[in-house]
Amino acid sequence: MISVEEHLGRILQAVRQLPPTESGLLEAQGCVLAEDVTASVQLPGFTNSAMDGYAVHAADLEGASEDDPVVLPVVADIAAGNTNALTLAPGQTMRIMTGAPLPQGADAVVPVELTDGGVAKVALHAAPAVGQHVREAGEDVRAGEVILRAGALLGPGQVALLAAAGTARVRVVPKPRVVVLSTGDELVEPGREPGFGQVVDSNSVMLVAAARAVGATPHRVGGVPDDARQLTEALEAQLQRADAIITTGGVSMGAFDTVKEVLSKVGTVQFDKVAMRPGMPQGFGVLGAAQVPVFTLPGNPVSALVSFHVFVAPALRAMAGRPEKAWPPGFVPATAAASWPSVEGKMEFTRVVLDGDRVRPAGGQGSHMLGALAAADALAVVPPEMARVEEGDELLCLPLLGTDAP
Amino acid sequence: MISVEEHLGRILQAVRQLPPTESGLLEAQGCVLAEDVTASVQLPGFTNSAMDGYAVHAADLEGASEDDPVVLPVVADIAAGNTNALTLAPGQTMRIMTGAPLPQGADAVVPVELTDGGVAKVALHAAPAVGQHVREAGEDVRAGEVILRAGALLGPGQVALLAAAGTARVRVVPKPRVVVLSTGDELVEPGREPGFGQVVDSNSVMLVAAARAVGATPHRVGGVPDDARQLTEALEAQLQRADAIITTGGVSMGAFDTVKEVLSKVGTVQFDKVAMRPGMPQGFGVLGAAQVPVFTLPGNPVSALVSFHVFVAPALRAMAGRPEKAWPPGFVPATAAASWPSVEGKMEFTRVVLDGDRVRPAGGQGSHMLGALAAADALAVVPPEMARVEEGDELLCLPLLGTDAP
Repeated sequence: MISVEEHLGRILQAVRQLPPTESGLLEAQGCVLAEDVTASVQLPGFTNSAMDGYAVHAADLEGASEDDPVVLPVVADIAAGNTNALTLAPGQTMRIMTGAPLPQGADAVVPVELTDGGVAKVALHAAPAVGQHVREAGEDVRAGEVILRAGALLGPGQVALLAAAGTARVRVVPKPRVVVLSTGDELVEPGREPGFGQVVDSNSVMLVAAARAVGATPHRVGGVPDDARQLTEALEAQLQRADAIITTGGVSMGAFDTVKEVLSKVGTVQFDKVAMRPGMPQGFGVLGAAQVPVFTLPGNPVSALVSFHVFVAPALRAMAGRPEKAWPPGFVPATAAASWPSVEGKMEFTRVVLDGDRVRPAGGQGSHMLGALAAADALAVVPPEMARVEEGDELLCLPLLGTDAP
Repeated sequence: MISVEEHLGRILQAVRQLPPTESGLLEAQGCVLAEDVTASVQLPGFTNSAMDGYAVHAADLEGASEDDPVVLPVVADIAAGNTNALTLAPGQTMRIMTGAPLPQGADAVVPVELTDGGVAKVALHAAPAVGQHVREAGEDVRAGEVILRAGALLGPGQVALLAAAGTARVRVVPKPRVVVLSTGDELVEPGREPGFGQVVDSNSVMLVAAARAVGATPHRVGGVPDDARQLTEALEAQLQRADAIITTGGVSMGAFDTVKEVLSKVGTVQFDKVAMRPGMPQGFGVLGAAQVPVFTLPGNPVSALVSFHVFVAPALRAMAGRPEKAWPPGFVPATAAASWPSVEGKMEFTRVVLDGDRVRPAGGQGSHMLGALAAADALAVVPPEMARVEEGDELLCLPLLGTDAP
């Protein structure tokens, strides 16, 4: 029996960040940059007005006030999108819109609210300081400056900055393509009624959802029978498209555990008992020339989802260039609001309901119990040395992926 | 000038939860259920083994121990997926795999680890209690039981439960289809080099990313010129597909603010100055027979993204059946790690970097400054009555969408 940390350590040592790909900005959302990006243009690209108002020579308005406005002729209108480089002579003004280029010679903008809004001539009721309501070219970003570093996660603000600074395609670490492959003669497709001895293949649907929730691109291969040849063929076919493969089922101590039977022979996949509950039988290794990581998760649904959170999600994050949340960052502290039994010598992942920073078991804790799993929003991590959780104990919790909406 | 709460209140009063649609389980991920779902089958569907081992009559093994095993004949192998209803006579045993149906008459399972693993006969080294390692039919979920309530968010565990309990299609509140429409003669497409007076249309890319990050399905319409007829046509065309429309630009005090010009005439869209910085000029209303909400955001990029977080995201959540995060839930408390000026009489949204629960400004706070926006991971909410934030002040922060990876 090996510890959870040992198994995870072996996985994280084996997985590699995926090679960078080039991508459009919106496709790159949620990915991290594979390299530093420099601005190819300055921002703002040209000196422009921060307000709708009038471009002026500040010196012309000395002493202007509410009661004693300065009146100047309006010699032009400058809209945003005006591409003519204009020049403002002293003693004149031009009406200017937010974002429109400041004319040469002008050094301040008087907001329209501080004027009579005139079109041919305008009464200006305030004396601006030099530079007031003016955005200087390059004051936000200088051309050639590094605007985002390798490893930066691309969200709305980041894609906006990239676009504005002249970058429409970026090199990013792609989202891992994950094949989820469920095995077992007992499986029937969701929507079909299971006969006696059969169960609906809910695991592959669940793991696809989980892979998506952690930012991967999943592909589902449901219900591969417990047959060595068919499983081998399915694995070989999927190796073509996969950055990682997750199987579920067929890894226990049984006589019909095909995943274990097939992958044990390959020699690069190792099967272990991990000191955890649920989720004890685990396998991990790499397959094929591309050394594609394969995670063989147990077939019990709760075991499978717990294993996904503890072992697969950290590996997929590392492959996507986001290794920082592996273990235990991402865990949140909480206080037990109830007492419950645990198992000594194994790390227990109790399915719990979070109420603020207090947690209580979500219901029945059997590894087949989907009812409690679906009611839970976190896993409380009960260390191997604890045989029981007492009310008031401090625990670390692992929030379940996809249970909190943005 | 109206308050932030007033403008948001008007928006939340006008938007409606979208009508339910039927959807497959994986398409429904991230949506909330529109109705209660009951189990059409019980879970487990049949009494089965929780372990790989041997099905027995517990009474046959009384007194069995490590030193004094009971040896029984093995009369059958029961794999998971075995669809025959078998019966176990007293004095016999059957080899059984995890999840396989327990034979009639058997009332316990001895795990293979507590046996010699025999095939024709087996030495059983433990005396199980009645019911040990047996999963009773229906112990997780009873047929007809409500398994998930209307309003439940569908994550991995929930779709697994739905699938297992016999539901492959569900009625959910769909993800809002959001059209993002940027306006302005000055805009050029991302990837094109802007000439003098032009800027890259980064806003529509940013708002599409933001809409996606809040769980909506966005569609981008970039760079509509400042022309009333073209804008009207674009709006009319997009009304066909949109559950909501977001425009950016053209709502200020200027002479060329086409969005304001066009939508003011419609009469159902109201333009206000909102006491906030950035983001003062705001418009909101409904368009067309379907009363599609339209949000007219300012054109300054920082103003647009702040407005999205403060006004649009809560509305999209409400439309998606997730109204609970509107205002201020979702905010996180933080302590100012620096002092910075604010503006009295307006709610200020300072772009800040979170370091644990301490925040400091991310850089230049101009409403055009994308550099600082892309460096920030939250907006610190500085109330209108504060003219300055002092180090140590407690503030509420609104995490920026899409800046934290799952």
